[in-house]
Amino acid sequence: MNSIANYIKQIESELSNFELPNSPENLYDPLRYFFELGGKRLRPALTLMTAENFSGQGKDALNAAMAVELFHNFSLIHDDIMDEAPFRRGKETVHTKWNNHIAILSGDVLFVKAYESLAKCDIKYLPELLNLFNKTATEVCEGQQMDMDFESRESVSEEEYIEMIRLKTSVLLGCAIQFGGIVSDLDAKMQQALYDFGQYIGIAFQIKDDLLDLYGESAKVGKQIGGDVLSNKKTLLNIKARELGCDMIQLSSIIEPNERVRSAQQIFKDFGAKEAAEKKMEAYYNDAIRSLEALPEIQKDLFKSFATYLIERAS
Amino acid sequence: MNSIANYIKQIESELSNFELPNSPENLYDPLRYFFELGGKRLRPALTLMTAENFSGQGKDALNAAMAVELFHNFSLIHDDIMDEAPFRRGKETVHTKWNNHIAILSGDVLFVKAYESLAKCDIKYLPELLNLFNKTATEVCEGQQMDMDFESRESVSEEEYIEMIRLKTSVLLGCAIQFGGIVSDLDAKMQQALYDFGQYIGIAFQIKDDLLDLYGESAKVGKQIGGDVLSNKKTLLNIKARELGCDMIQLSSIIEPNERVRSAQQIFKDFGAKEAAEKKMEAYYNDAIRSLEALPEIQKDLFKSFATYLIERAS
Repeated sequence: MNSIANYIKQIESELSNFELPNSPENLYDPLRYFFELGGKRLRPALTLMTAENFSGQGKDALNAAMAVELFHNFSLIHDDIMDEAPFRRGKETVHTKWNNHIAILSGDVLFVKAYESLAKCDIKYLPELLNLFNKTATEVCEGQQMDMDFESRESVSEEEYIEMIRLKTSVLLGCAIQFGGIVSDLDAKMQQALYDFGQYIGIAFQIKDDLLDLYGESAKVGKQIGGDVLSNKKTLLNIKARELGCDMIQLSSIIEPNERVRSAQQIFKDFGAKEAAEKKMEAYYNDAIRSLEALPEIQKDLFKSFATYLIERAS
Repeated sequence: MNSIANYIKQIESELSNFELPNSPENLYDPLRYFFELGGKRLRPALTLMTAENFSGQGKDALNAAMAVELFHNFSLIHDDIMDEAPFRRGKETVHTKWNNHIAILSGDVLFVKAYESLAKCDIKYLPELLNLFNKTATEVCEGQQMDMDFESRESVSEEEYIEMIRLKTSVLLGCAIQFGGIVSDLDAKMQQALYDFGQYIGIAFQIKDDLLDLYGESAKVGKQIGGDVLSNKKTLLNIKARELGCDMIQLSSIIEPNERVRSAQQIFKDFGAKEAAEKKMEAYYNDAIRSLEALPEIQKDLFKSFATYLIERAS
């Protein structure tokens, strides 16, 4: 069995050899640039890991994995416009380096490349892959819309937040893992188990991201700590803190950024919001592990160690 | 045989019954709104017409036709953002009525709906349909990028302009007609003939659009006449006028809009630019007709009358 790092390397190599036309430059240069920014490549690595461990076809697994990664990159390019994010991984976002129009269109063509990659899969898998991909892509858009809608709302319930991150983040992890199951000819029950695992671990993964945003180490996370607090983002930590009676108005009245972040770190801990978010993350981790029941013991262990890796990470 | 008007009606009925979720409202309301704005629906009508006349399956033809129309609508929503167009068909564009972010995302989800429609086609047609669709979608993005690049350029050659409209407009007509051929199990030679016909007639169609923009009747065309001249757009008329020695600097120095449009109408005619554009349109019309050689006589006549309808239209 390969390690996750090896699958990630394989995807990196595919991306750096990914053939794109030279012209029009303003359409394709942004994509070459974006691929070079790097990324965790976790989703496609999950497809490869799943397929290899259930003896799925190498070529189909790779094409399906690349479809997931290309789609993810497309959604990041468009999300960065909508979030008006100037930087990604410490470098300029596409719409900052070029402009919004170019970021829209190069995103669009990247979306087509995702479908092109999927279309290379064996015809016997194509309808199933395509249906799951379409469903997932729709849900990711719905999640992003919910996220945007939340910005202008006074408050968001925990249930709404979880549904938003399920759609925006987790379904694509579910899709990535199930893709590995599809190209391995697994039965519907096992495919569902893989999807559920991916979805639950995806939610835990996102809560971990929220926690790292406030309690991580800047050098490891690769961005400034406390961004969510400074932009008043309604993450699970924020929702829990509000629920537990933190004075959010007083917190947001602190002008000095470092001081506001330090205050949030302290009072979210004191009021138990940090612990509540960690508990929630563990609950989803446990749901993920429980979803693996239908799988053979050896695969169970594999996915379990992957899940542990995801929620124990520091970056 | 049905008339084109009947195929258009069928597509209108599909669009008005098109099922979209209610929530998130900001994702799906813009699509309902956009469908109600109407449109020529020529592309999907072409798929239906081609399929019916070669006895293609009704359901596959309809799903393929809808994929083309949904894709076309997606590309219009995104193009309107990039072109900063406030109106379409006399009503506010999506990004004007809502905002750019919502227009990006509702466009994205509409793109998925196009693929969903295609995925409903019989599996025996799916790879062929998907490959042509992906190729076409890529080219449409390339054409839109070329169009944007032309805006900041001093001049554009006729050859470059034709290549831009081929990609931005014509390939989707070729795709729409070939879709009808694919679901009718036509051989590669006949499919190619249909595609070429669509592509050539698409170029003629766009040149007709350029001519109507300056020489059409406002009430029939459904927009203000002379928009291209006022925005100094490099259409074939503009390129030909420059080639034929029109003083374009003097023309663009006329401040009063109506006067500038009237002047352009007159001098483009006097210098022979109008005639040159009409000749070019006829040449592509003739290329389109010649492409039909491989088809049986009865189909030849059908496509010929459609081609004539397209370039003799007043709106």
